[in-house]
Amino acid sequence: MSYLQNMKTKILDGKKLREKIRIKLGQRVEGMRRTPVLAIVSVKGADRSDVYIREKIKFGASIGVKVRNIVLPADCSASELLDAIKAQNQDNTVDGVIVQMPLPFSDLRIFANAVNPQKDVDGLTDVNLGKILAGAGEGILAATARGVITLLREYDESVDGKKVLIIGRSTLVGRPLAAAMLALNATVTVAHSRTANIREEIRSADIVVVAAGVPNLIRREDVRSHQVIVDVGISLVDGEKIEEEIPTKNVVGDVAFDEVRDSVSAISPVPGGVGPMTVASLFENLLDALR
Amino acid sequence: MSYLQNMKTKILDGKKLREKIRIKLGQRVEGMRRTPVLAIVSVKGADRSDVYIREKIKFGASIGVKVRNIVLPADCSASELLDAIKAQNQDNTVDGVIVQMPLPFSDLRIFANAVNPQKDVDGLTDVNLGKILAGAGEGILAATARGVITLLREYDESVDGKKVLIIGRSTLVGRPLAAAMLALNATVTVAHSRTANIREEIRSADIVVVAAGVPNLIRREDVRSHQVIVDVGISLVDGEKIEEEIPTKNVVGDVAFDEVRDSVSAISPVPGGVGPMTVASLFENLLDALR
Repeated sequence: MSYLQNMKTKILDGKKLREKIRIKLGQRVEGMRRTPVLAIVSVKGADRSDVYIREKIKFGASIGVKVRNIVLPADCSASELLDAIKAQNQDNTVDGVIVQMPLPFSDLRIFANAVNPQKDVDGLTDVNLGKILAGAGEGILAATARGVITLLREYDESVDGKKVLIIGRSTLVGRPLAAAMLALNATVTVAHSRTANIREEIRSADIVVVAAGVPNLIRREDVRSHQVIVDVGISLVDGEKIEEEIPTKNVVGDVAFDEVRDSVSAISPVPGGVGPMTVASLFENLLDALR
Repeated sequence: MSYLQNMKTKILDGKKLREKIRIKLGQRVEGMRRTPVLAIVSVKGADRSDVYIREKIKFGASIGVKVRNIVLPADCSASELLDAIKAQNQDNTVDGVIVQMPLPFSDLRIFANAVNPQKDVDGLTDVNLGKILAGAGEGILAATARGVITLLREYDESVDGKKVLIIGRSTLVGRPLAAAMLALNATVTVAHSRTANIREEIRSADIVVVAAGVPNLIRREDVRSHQVIVDVGISLVDGEKIEEEIPTKNVVGDVAFDEVRDSVSAISPVPGGVGPMTVASLFENLLDALR
């Protein structure tokens, strides 16, 4: 602490920003001729998927979007799930289709890719990942990745020319975020479990986005006072990694927030940082997809 | 020089490796029931495109692949070019389709994406870029990126756990290579013209792949003795950046080869390094696409 303490640490408040976005999106929907529809295809009984879906239905309702949940039985086959996704693709009254994780299947890319890329508001199809990687300003960016970028922008943290470290290489966050940050002129490094010297990588970055699902991965001794830390990790306090932030006090991020917060320039908390941004970004993607 | 000189510098010889691959591919084609066909769609009079196409026809002939060149007039419209690409997609006798760069149009992504992803042996469609980024072992990797990886593998330079710096973020090389290296467990950094401290990035990497098209970008003072340097840049000696390596002595890379070569662990020359790998990798992609 003492004189090293950074008294002006910005807290990147995703909960507050989500409310601002909620209002904006509500106004956009009001100006539309018809009610936008999001279809969520899920499998019954998958871990916490009910909670995740409830959050989306609630947010949708608050901005005037109809969220339809197609629930398949717990013992459904892969082809039944694929058929359910395709039915939503073909339904002209449906604007966006997402497949709720987790799923009781191993190869998730098949289901992600079954969504029509134009309705793929989770941004997980090969086509949208490829468009983001191509960097020509097209494609739908994965919701959490978009949430990170929107949160940084809200707090005037430009990534242009900055050294950005992304820890974690999931298809949901790390990979698309790296591609998007590159298009925004960041010098991007992606680190992961095989990275030889993660401490050194953290120390040399201007902005660190950590999406590893490993509580206390970043401690005070790892950070520097000019740094911006974005914490995307979500685990339950018992250490179990979860998919999305849920409304409970029992979630923690990858950063030891209390000891790091005063030692950096800006930091996002867990809960209340990137977590609330994911649902807001999902609905931004949905309204953008309507054209 | 003196005692700092690295007497055992490996020269990553792409010309030699291309010949090994030529023999292997020739054997694969021999075992096939029919002659594979590559279609190259090009526009007449585009800079040096004749030379690039001639190289591909020659390589194809040497392994028993038929290369068909569809040449559009210099003043063709975008939709004529798109139609020509689609005709090759639909032709069942054609196994691979590439659109020869450069083109007299500004938005090149439209033409890259007009190719059927399954015939996209240049690996430039959104779908293939996305599959490479997803990292599930699917998709066709851009030929030059594949060439870099094959060349490193041939010389037992594993990227697993290594810190790899890629300089340049083109859709042809830097972006797909970064995605592919990540899937191979490298800690990947992509630097470019907006990178703040490129010297520092170069110094801290284990493997540097430079694809900037800027002669003498890397000098002796930038490198360290344990490093592997892969030079993808191709410029004419007068400084003009070109698309592909052509058979002339007048091409140079991004590395000041003569002063760097003895100061690193391994290095690829220009010409004769990555350049010859591109055509070999293109035909590897073609034969892989036949399944």
